[in-house]
Amino acid sequence: MAYSAEKLSEEKVFKDPVHRYIHVRDRVIWDLIGTKEFQRLRRIKQLGTTYLTFHGAEHSRFNHSLGVYEIVRRISDDVFLGRPEWDEEDRILTLCAALLHDLGHGPFSHSFEKVFDLDHEHYTRAIILGDTEVHQVLTRVSADFPQKVADVIAKTSKNKLVVSLISSQIDADRMDYLQRDAYFTGVSYGHFDMERILRVMRPREDQVVIKQSGMHAVEDYIMSRYQMYWQVYFHPVTRSAEVILTKILHRAKDLHEQKYRFKYDPIHFYSLFNGEITLEDYIKLDEAIILYYFQMWQEEEDPILKDLCCRFMDRNLYKYVEFDPAKEYKKLTELSALFKKAGIDPEYYLVVDSSSDLPYDFYRPGEEEERLPIHLLLKNGDIRELSRESEIVDAISGKRRTDHKLYYPADFIADDSKKPNIKKQIRTLLEID
Amino acid sequence: MAYSAEKLSEEKVFKDPVHRYIHVRDRVIWDLIGTKEFQRLRRIKQLGTTYLTFHGAEHSRFNHSLGVYEIVRRISDDVFLGRPEWDEEDRILTLCAALLHDLGHGPFSHSFEKVFDLDHEHYTRAIILGDTEVHQVLTRVSADFPQKVADVIAKTSKNKLVVSLISSQIDADRMDYLQRDAYFTGVSYGHFDMERILRVMRPREDQVVIKQSGMHAVEDYIMSRYQMYWQVYFHPVTRSAEVILTKILHRAKDLHEQKYRFKYDPIHFYSLFNGEITLEDYIKLDEAIILYYFQMWQEEEDPILKDLCCRFMDRNLYKYVEFDPAKEYKKLTELSALFKKAGIDPEYYLVVDSSSDLPYDFYRPGEEEERLPIHLLLKNGDIRELSRESEIVDAISGKRRTDHKLYYPADFIADDSKKPNIKKQIRTLLEID
Amino acid sequence: MAYSAEKLSEEKVFKDPVHRYIHVRDRVIWDLIGTKEFQRLRRIKQLGTTYLTFHGAEHSRFNHSLGVYEIVRRISDDVFLGRPEWDEEDRILTLCAALLHDLGHGPFSHSFEKVFDLDHEHYTRAIILGDTEVHQVLTRVSADFPQKVADVIAKTSKNKLVVSLISSQIDADRMDYLQRDAYFTGVSYGHFDMERILRVMRPREDQVVIKQSGMHAVEDYIMSRYQMYWQVYFHPVTRSAEVILTKILHRAKDLHEQKYRFKYDPIHFYSLFNGEITLEDYIKLDEAIILYYFQMWQEEEDPILKDLCCRFMDRNLYKYVEFDPAKEYKKLTELSALFKKAGIDPEYYLVVDSSSDLPYDFYRPGEEEERLPIHLLLKNGDIRELSRESEIVDAISGKRRTDHKLYYPADFIADDSKKPNIKKQIRTLLEID
Amino acid sequence: MAYSAEKLSEEKVFKDPVHRYIHVRDRVIWDLIGTKEFQRLRRIKQLGTTYLTFHGAEHSRFNHSLGVYEIVRRISDDVFLGRPEWDEEDRILTLCAALLHDLGHGPFSHSFEKVFDLDHEHYTRAIILGDTEVHQVLTRVSADFPQKVADVIAKTSKNKLVVSLISSQIDADRMDYLQRDAYFTGVSYGHFDMERILRVMRPREDQVVIKQSGMHAVEDYIMSRYQMYWQVYFHPVTRSAEVILTKILHRAKDLHEQKYRFKYDPIHFYSLFNGEITLEDYIKLDEAIILYYFQMWQEEEDPILKDLCCRFMDRNLYKYVEFDPAKEYKKLTELSALFKKAGIDPEYYLVVDSSSDLPYDFYRPGEEEERLPIHLLLKNGDIRELSRESEIVDAISGKRRTDHKLYYPADFIADDSKKPNIKKQIRTLLEID
Repeated sequence: MAYSAEKLSEEKVFKDPVHRYIHVRDRVIWDLIGTKEFQRLRRIKQLGTTYLTFHGAEHSRFNHSLGVYEIVRRISDDVFLGRPEWDEEDRILTLCAALLHDLGHGPFSHSFEKVFDLDHEHYTRAIILGDTEVHQVLTRVSADFPQKVADVIAKTSKNKLVVSLISSQIDADRMDYLQRDAYFTGVSYGHFDMERILRVMRPREDQVVIKQSGMHAVEDYIMSRYQMYWQVYFHPVTRSAEVILTKILHRAKDLHEQKYRFKYDPIHFYSLFNGEITLEDYIKLDEAIILYYFQMWQEEEDPILKDLCCRFMDRNLYKYVEFDPAKEYKKLTELSALFKKAGIDPEYYLVVDSSSDLPYDFYRPGEEEERLPIHLLLKNGDIRELSRESEIVDAISGKRRTDHKLYYPADFIADDSKKPNIKKQIRTLLEID
Repeated sequence: MAYSAEKLSEEKVFKDPVHRYIHVRDRVIWDLIGTKEFQRLRRIKQLGTTYLTFHGAEHSRFNHSLGVYEIVRRISDDVFLGRPEWDEEDRILTLCAALLHDLGHGPFSHSFEKVFDLDHEHYTRAIILGDTEVHQVLTRVSADFPQKVADVIAKTSKNKLVVSLISSQIDADRMDYLQRDAYFTGVSYGHFDMERILRVMRPREDQVVIKQSGMHAVEDYIMSRYQMYWQVYFHPVTRSAEVILTKILHRAKDLHEQKYRFKYDPIHFYSLFNGEITLEDYIKLDEAIILYYFQMWQEEEDPILKDLCCRFMDRNLYKYVEFDPAKEYKKLTELSALFKKAGIDPEYYLVVDSSSDLPYDFYRPGEEEERLPIHLLLKNGDIRELSRESEIVDAISGKRRTDHKLYYPADFIADDSKKPNIKKQIRTLLEID
Repeated sequence: MAYSAEKLSEEKVFKDPVHRYIHVRDRVIWDLIGTKEFQRLRRIKQLGTTYLTFHGAEHSRFNHSLGVYEIVRRISDDVFLGRPEWDEEDRILTLCAALLHDLGHGPFSHSFEKVFDLDHEHYTRAIILGDTEVHQVLTRVSADFPQKVADVIAKTSKNKLVVSLISSQIDADRMDYLQRDAYFTGVSYGHFDMERILRVMRPREDQVVIKQSGMHAVEDYIMSRYQMYWQVYFHPVTRSAEVILTKILHRAKDLHEQKYRFKYDPIHFYSLFNGEITLEDYIKLDEAIILYYFQMWQEEEDPILKDLCCRFMDRNLYKYVEFDPAKEYKKLTELSALFKKAGIDPEYYLVVDSSSDLPYDFYRPGEEEERLPIHLLLKNGDIRELSRESEIVDAISGKRRTDHKLYYPADFIADDSKKPNIKKQIRTLLEID
Repeated sequence: MAYSAEKLSEEKVFKDPVHRYIHVRDRVIWDLIGTKEFQRLRRIKQLGTTYLTFHGAEHSRFNHSLGVYEIVRRISDDVFLGRPEWDEEDRILTLCAALLHDLGHGPFSHSFEKVFDLDHEHYTRAIILGDTEVHQVLTRVSADFPQKVADVIAKTSKNKLVVSLISSQIDADRMDYLQRDAYFTGVSYGHFDMERILRVMRPREDQVVIKQSGMHAVEDYIMSRYQMYWQVYFHPVTRSAEVILTKILHRAKDLHEQKYRFKYDPIHFYSLFNGEITLEDYIKLDEAIILYYFQMWQEEEDPILKDLCCRFMDRNLYKYVEFDPAKEYKKLTELSALFKKAGIDPEYYLVVDSSSDLPYDFYRPGEEEERLPIHLLLKNGDIRELSRESEIVDAISGKRRTDHKLYYPADFIADDSKKPNIKKQIRTLLEID
């Protein structure tokens, strides 16, 4: 039998708190889960530093990846099966792309990507196409199968229907993470009727569409997403942890460039610092390694690196005030000067962080960050973009919301044992006294 | 105001998936949560290697410790408050003991304690009484307060009522972990009506008792516990991971004693190997450090250490067969000999693991592992031990259940490229062909 | 002790699927629950005919009334207690008004009120002020207490804070019914974080306000409400049952006026037909009585009454098509004429039903159906109307949505045994062939 | 196409709070649901008078019947499909039997059956085989199909596998009602992992068996059932309502036999009183009719009927004390005499009620109430009765538990305006002073 059609003698089942059970019958899926590159995702948290705000959010990307796979499996096996617009040949391609879509994520990707100019999508592709166990498994399907999977994940595949199942404004990725992140954080947002949405999904040549009767469930999903973004993903405390994490990486890189002699030599960081990390090195990176160094660096001599690492490990985070970039840059300059006078390096200790999201967007061809809109299948067979049918979605469509905050170490500012007058001026400017 | 009575200006609230919210008003509790020793519990999983069986079980002891605190807070503030048998002075003592009861747990404690002869209860005491941030906070209550808290956790306190809230057969510890572990694993066991149990708890001089009207809720709790033990905590796959973990530690220790030259020098393990670990070193231990070494040791030259670490990191676990210690020791000796012949060291690769539990036990004074039984408060004011009132509990009371399994690396045994005949004999003896 | 301050010797607890437990300690509340007028609410469904669409929606107004009470009790005892803006004297008033706010609802109120020109709010007041067990209990608090309770429910009370807890755009009534109706129907809408909303409610002199930090929970609540309206309350199948129910009542009334001789004399309806129902008679009305007559009338000679009752009892409902009142009145006239030709009385068998809702409204003083808007309490102490802070709410604020449907008996229209040509024309006009 | 194989052009879906959705694709099932006899189940509560104890328990037998159907559909379509031991021909038979298994239940069956010597199973059969809409639908499958369905429900069918799915110690009926009754009452018992149990069910020639790997889920199910019986079904307050209901029926029957002139003539009861009720009359009975009469009888002249009806309608129930039939019959005789002296008829006002259940029973061939035990399918293919494998089940197997209570009207006994000394004696004997 062709490897892609091979079934396990007995179905394997994972107990999953979100989908109850995750079912695996395909040999190729089972083999992919067993690869070292996929198992590595167990050591990378799905939500990075969010666990410092919501203590339940300790779940890994392994968790989420299985969830996305299960959603796509259900769409394929329970909803699309037998429909003329669905090519059964695409099934295994879709399942593999779903399972592997986050494979290239490193530890605390958000900060790492920013500081070291990395791109997890690049590494997902690299792992699929490179000299890896995942690649070996995929190659057993066919020589060009790894490339096909990589193309779907990169959204460059010609198979737009499959792409839309993995990456669109209502894809399996989002449907899993909203529910999963809500479950583990314990927030009451993130609930929507996924079962209903799955049941009304229909395959079309170039995308998945939603039967009009499911429109309200989709509205609810969009609202859930909106709430999760502002309540969880952009939570100001999480962003504080992220700010500190970024500054640790910055500082370590700066010190390395300044030929600083580390007590604990960051051998795993060298190639990152130098911008020449290999795939093999990249795969070794996980949160244990990062946290190992952060723990060690608490004993470094450099006071900034030491302080930042202590803050991160002991969750002694920065406080924040609202910041209006349109009006307050002058104030920021003043604060920066005062920080310097007070002996607190503003580069590390005075940070503006901005978060921004579009709750939903209709189609804007050619614009940056083009997003695949959601399409409804009307009763008469026509297809219409969601915001033209839903008043609620229309009301929020295309409206970007941005939030700016200014982060600083409240304990330093409050400590009047040194330079009390300058500290006083800082507190007055920050309006925190 | 006395530090123990100090309240936060605004209540702090943690979102918790199990109890919905965890409420903190007491300054001392807030300060304890902020200590580095308590924050360290974020880096130690509540269920050790269970996440390799139930992928959702990635939650930390930080999570659980807050939960136990919250249960005790609710008992104290919502149920016991104002009852004559409850001394409001004991409130803060109880809250602190609940929050800190697991403070001394190290990474993967079960295996570490076995291999290095450690005792997490010893370290809980040591952290509370030693030179730590936790100790500093507790001392602010009173000079003898750390000792009082340590005594409650050690069950040596004269205050038996408070002890029974933290450690008995129906304590806040168990009520939290059953629900929490069920939530994160996603299993459907572990549910019982805690709210009802809390409402019918009553303080008595030497213990907490349960009003008879809550007996059925308690029965349900005991059944939940029974199911969680056999379905989750003693799951044979988790025990396989535990076996491998234990063997990694053994091997590293043996190599160290044999003066083996590690590529990655296990500096954090030295004092463990030598049995002279300091409190300061102990506190540094967390899962990140352990996993860091396991990752590095995948590249060691010693084939056994390397293989075991690869197995653990990539979740390539041992398989198992049932094992009857009463009858099969001869078979084990034969297998051991065959393993040696096949070049597979039985000390590391052929392991019997036994799990054993009592679902509930009545009072057996003087016996080993004496357990505090559950007492019901009858309508007429009498107090009776649970199994005398509940037929269901009586039916299972004192009945120990034990399970033995024999673990081995199925891939080694299946590999017929070397010594196929011996492998064949092994498979025949294991009855796996 | 004053009756209003009297506590039960032991708290009474109702198991409630929505709030888990409903707690009663006040003697007056316990006594009110025991009155015959309150127990009558057990025989009136919360959602009228919705159970014919969502089979789980069989819960009663008794259910809901306890829920509203419990929410108000928690606001009062857990959130407002001890705040200077909250007068503890208002506690019992609020609890009683919450418990009794729906007391005057009759069976299938929506249709009954329309056909017989009744007003349940009038009857709530009448029961509270009239010669009833409820009145006797309330009078034990003080002679003017019944009037006070009635004024709160009627929104004429000067105590605007208490009124706003019972009747505003974010009152205990709505918070209970959204969750309760979602629970019993089983839909996945209707979830919002009530616990969070309760925790951030603050009393002000003339209304309850919400701390800004709870704004997202309120947004979620408004979206839940929107979805519940369109997914559940205005479900077209429920409206079909409602149309038939209304027509049964119409027909019975018409027949009575035509001196028709009923086989089963509708003695309980006489005073309704004549518009002179007494309080005593009104209180006797419950769903059992109505369904008794509908069952009996299935055997009446009048073919329309008989048919309509059979339809209702056996759930043989009308079908519907979309209807655009702006454009299609001519079509309706044509259809009406054709129905007559076909021997199907359009008065009973061709019905336009319109549903309309505002998801949220800001303050429009003086306009009809003036609604109390939701106010946020900003960090600086200012109070702002919700839609000025929330972009999502602003986007939908004041936007009325209306839906029109045309209902007809599909079986009659499909039956070509008589007048096939006319039926054909009807089907063509309805575009259902 | 054969009617039994006919599919709806589009699947019909019912939103269900317990199973989320109930799916109907078979024409015959859809047609059965639409019959007047099946719709009648909407007017009969699943748990009779339990709503007077647990206010959420207002759900109907319609609700439950759909649930049992859905469970059987999932077993058939998701688990058994394609297995050699499963005859696809049995599918429709099983679905119909599941849907219709409770069809003959009347209002408040427990009391009605006791007083009027009825048997709902007899009426289920009669409706299936008689001149009904249900019969017409079933006959369209084949002439002997109604008989086949009736035989399955009566357990006289030769098809023992199908019988065991509908009626055994782990059948679809029990699995639905435990979960459904837990959901609507809101109790935390009644949860077990049905999805797991369904997945491990296997068809065998003469019964359904459970794969050994699902044993713990079955243990949990048995414990759930045990708790539901004692916490919900046998709740002493529900039994009080049941006692009063039974006494109303007794009294009405007695009065009828004594030629009492009812103000509201109980025409619907005549045939019940005379023991000659026809199928047509039986089908008309629903709770609305019963409650109609109870409402009317509150105005009867007979003081006992009037009082009992007022008690039932206003939930003014009897209180109870424990009663030991082995020792206390003498006391009962004394009490009876005292009641008579006090002018309180003991026949109606002093009632012993006994409830009794076996949590699980192994096979006792030939004994009364023979129950089909649960069988496990071992890994080696052997089949073993559950209690031989499960220690927990063995511990409780065959242990009947019985509870006796003595009910009386506390208000009458407390009323010392008449015969205070006798009342005092009564209270002393009842030990309630």
